[in-house]
Amino acid sequence: MSDGLHAPVGVFVCFEGGEGSGKSTQSRLLATWLREEGYAALLTFEPGDTPVGRELRRIVLDPATGVLSDRTEVLLYAADKAEHVDTVVQPALARGEVVITDRYVDSTLAYQGAGRALAVAEVERVARWATHDLRPHLTVVLDLEPASGLGRFEGRDRIEGESLEFHQRVRSSFVAMAAADPDHYLVLDAREPVDAIAAAVRDRVTPLLVQARR
Amino acid sequence: MSDGLHAPVGVFVCFEGGEGSGKSTQSRLLATWLREEGYAALLTFEPGDTPVGRELRRIVLDPATGVLSDRTEVLLYAADKAEHVDTVVQPALARGEVVITDRYVDSTLAYQGAGRALAVAEVERVARWATHDLRPHLTVVLDLEPASGLGRFEGRDRIEGESLEFHQRVRSSFVAMAAADPDHYLVLDAREPVDAIAAAVRDRVTPLLVQARR
Repeated sequence: MSDGLHAPVGVFVCFEGGEGSGKSTQSRLLATWLREEGYAALLTFEPGDTPVGRELRRIVLDPATGVLSDRTEVLLYAADKAEHVDTVVQPALARGEVVITDRYVDSTLAYQGAGRALAVAEVERVARWATHDLRPHLTVVLDLEPASGLGRFEGRDRIEGESLEFHQRVRSSFVAMAAADPDHYLVLDAREPVDAIAAAVRDRVTPLLVQARR
Repeated sequence: MSDGLHAPVGVFVCFEGGEGSGKSTQSRLLATWLREEGYAALLTFEPGDTPVGRELRRIVLDPATGVLSDRTEVLLYAADKAEHVDTVVQPALARGEVVITDRYVDSTLAYQGAGRALAVAEVERVARWATHDLRPHLTVVLDLEPASGLGRFEGRDRIEGESLEFHQRVRSSFVAMAAADPDHYLVLDAREPVDAIAAAVRDRVTPLLVQARR
């Protein structure tokens, strides 16, 4: 795997956005294309893509859980991330793979930080510690007016049952994070045709693939 | 509840120590005595004394969970603490009650910090954030040579299945925390008779009760 200066170190791509913005569709399309091109691509998601993460996802999203303390929720999502990074993301990157995750730290910052009463800086400190401050090479934000996205899954779980204002703050948060670091973000209008979005993602991912194992 | 300078603000007492050191026995004896004396005493424990905490305790202690990342474990215990402090401990203290907990932040520092590879300062930062830095008025450490305590519950769960060296580091950690802050700690030899320990605890708790509601 090592060839000196161009040793592959893997590529970490994250999809972010509100509910119904097409993250899982676009994650799958990118993974499929990468595999067709001969790259090892790992498709994953947060929360819940580890054995312990599945249990935490169930606890956090199940309406039967009722009200959780804000800090409890932040810490449960952080525990899911810690397990995900240590046992799924980091090992695949070490093998030189392209790791595509549907949601990551930005979702925590947007939903728990911007959406609730906690200071974003505190939430971020916990999430960065959980993930060893591992940051994606690229985060694709699929931007969508909350109302249209929410209509597709109305009342499905605790997060989606929040107010429209909550989801508007979440949307603004994603857009602000992208604006602050354009080298590592791509913001796309989620209402564009699926194929057009997928093509724009591929164009932005292609130059990163020098780091990936074929 | 308010009578000016002597307004009750509750009393927070914590029992710490290794497995088999008698923490739950002594917690119960103290609660029983306080109630006989006319105080409102709440007996609780970590991890697991909230609905979400029970699920987390099951995940963390169940051998079927297998290996958890160190950070995952710290964050799960912190989530349990956040929920415990916000929904159980803090409301009872606000009512002026005596809250007695079997394990608290020191257990996290001893088991996850001293026992594993993580820096204690990092573990403490997460645990203090989870608990709003709420500290007990008194922590009673029931000190016991690990081997004798472990013999009672050998192999019962993931933590008790750790090596003797691990449990010795845990014990040293409790004793060191107590030595660094003698005003807020009472260290007792767990091999003393149950009644003698209970009496020593009562002597140390009595002056704190001016803060408690009768």
